[in-house]
Amino acid sequence: MQHSPALAALIEALRALPGVGPKSAQRMAFHLLQDARPAAQALSGALERALERVNRCRQCRMLTEDELCDICANAQRDPGLLCVVESPADVVAIEQSGGYRGRYFVLMGHLSPLDGIGPEQLGGAQFTALLAAGQVREVILATNSTVEGEATAHFLAQLVRQRGITVSRIAHGVPMGGELEYIDGSTLAHAMTGRQPL
Amino acid sequence: MQHSPALAALIEALRALPGVGPKSAQRMAFHLLQDARPAAQALSGALERALERVNRCRQCRMLTEDELCDICANAQRDPGLLCVVESPADVVAIEQSGGYRGRYFVLMGHLSPLDGIGPEQLGGAQFTALLAAGQVREVILATNSTVEGEATAHFLAQLVRQRGITVSRIAHGVPMGGELEYIDGSTLAHAMTGRQPL
Repeated sequence: MQHSPALAALIEALRALPGVGPKSAQRMAFHLLQDARPAAQALSGALERALERVNRCRQCRMLTEDELCDICANAQRDPGLLCVVESPADVVAIEQSGGYRGRYFVLMGHLSPLDGIGPEQLGGAQFTALLAAGQVREVILATNSTVEGEATAHFLAQLVRQRGITVSRIAHGVPMGGELEYIDGSTLAHAMTGRQPL
Repeated sequence: MQHSPALAALIEALRALPGVGPKSAQRMAFHLLQDARPAAQALSGALERALERVNRCRQCRMLTEDELCDICANAQRDPGLLCVVESPADVVAIEQSGGYRGRYFVLMGHLSPLDGIGPEQLGGAQFTALLAAGQVREVILATNSTVEGEATAHFLAQLVRQRGITVSRIAHGVPMGGELEYIDGSTLAHAMTGRQPL
């Protein structure tokens, strides 16, 4: 059965959301038009406003509505520690874990030459400028533990070392509450190599 | 960590989508603002246009951009058969299954007195008008097989019978490909009672 053009366009547009396939998109569209018209109106407006107002922090590339994000603007945060992550969601996750008092640098992706994503697209210029400013004592590489994330970490590590700045990688190992029996071999190998003296 | 106001508003608005919790909403918002700004713009526009153009069919309450939906406007469809469903998605599902050549009536919900949803909210007036028009020979009740769906079917069956029109309920039983061993008791009981002569 054919959907009417405006409905078909809405279903297609909803598929841009991560994790939304054709079936969920149709369900969302029907829900919005059937029971949730005020919410649909609110969503359209919120998208419009967010696109207009939310940009990247001049210093760390985090999403923000101001020139500098809250963290870069916060004088209480240690400018000597710089944690490099792939996405804004990673910043949120680390902030929620508490304890980290340094600043961030958000790559907004990882190196992926086949997709045309090189250092340039990941804010390489801003990153080197930050290092050159001389405040950073240690760079903590917290890119994902995927092939691309590791490659990106490796590339950045060289960049940082060239400037004589300490560089570290977040620890990989058994997650808290994890049972050894169910942990994959590669993680276990990392846990063994990265063992800490007690 | 606090999101900026426009970002927080977008995350909140995305939660209106069915099946989207706080974590997915955040993921969607970051994705739209980080990698998919044109898609976000398209989504906002598609929502706006769909809200403006898509309304309900005058006759069957299906979502449509015209006075009458494609099915009601189609002279090839048998006006003597009327299938009553809860939502537009049900119409799509039945149409995709093929074979049904009658028309539909879309309740846009089910009876739910506690939520203030009575016959009035489900298009009761339109439904009685359709029956009164005299073309309908048989009403097929295809509401969901939930407590509310069954109650709604029961209520509508009485309405239809009063007018001397044949009323039927879609069959409940073992789904095709289903193994008896894994079917719940209530479904099996229905399958036994509803058995068909071979």
